[in-house]
Amino acid sequence: MLNKQDQLDLMFHALADSSRRSMLQQLGSGPRSVSELARPLSMTLAGVVQHVQILETSGLISSTKVGRTRTCHMNPVALSAVEKWIAERQSNVERQLDRLGELLSNNTDYQQRRKK
Amino acid sequence: MLNKQDQLDLMFHALADSSRRSMLQQLGSGPRSVSELARPLSMTLAGVVQHVQILETSGLISSTKVGRTRTCHMNPVALSAVEKWIAERQSNVERQLDRLGELLSNNTDYQQRRKK
Repeated sequence: MLNKQDQLDLMFHALADSSRRSMLQQLGSGPRSVSELARPLSMTLAGVVQHVQILETSGLISSTKVGRTRTCHMNPVALSAVEKWIAERQSNVERQLDRLGELLSNNTDYQQRRKK
Repeated sequence: MLNKQDQLDLMFHALADSSRRSMLQQLGSGPRSVSELARPLSMTLAGVVQHVQILETSGLISSTKVGRTRTCHMNPVALSAVEKWIAERQSNVERQLDRLGELLSNNTDYQQRRKK
């Protein structure tokens, strides 16, 4: 069982490739077979299978095999973990900018009072 | 000049490491010098500098050097690009789940009407 940090490592690594992001984009509209995922990409089927495995190991997608067809679908819960991490960082940065804005505004008030 | 996909590759790659994420977490509370970033990490200063370079190349942070001290700060605009990409995927998946919910609910209505 992976810990939360290792899981985030795998997810961000999976997202760090434009072909894998394009696959996730396709899966955003619904489940797709591996050959459907391969169609818009200029890549061998073997290459696509490798990317699918990286996405699956990261937990961002799951797949089921019926007969000879493997169908992939997104795992919304996994993407939420990534979204949560980013949103936390972003809100901290926004708080920082708010504080900076307040400091600047207080400083301007102080300068204006000094001029009077 | 990198295109948008290459930039996202670099940003997600930068995020795919728990030490770099922990540095971004620190920078979320305000600018930090490289040695301040190194303090909570069990890592040589040279190792930290390498991570800082990866974060800086990705555009997630910027740094300025005054005398011998390099100070790092987060770049909120870059993080917004990552956040936007994730949010778009997430909203597509949510639409998918809504459609599935509607289908299931219509199907239940149909079954109930058939029973009457």
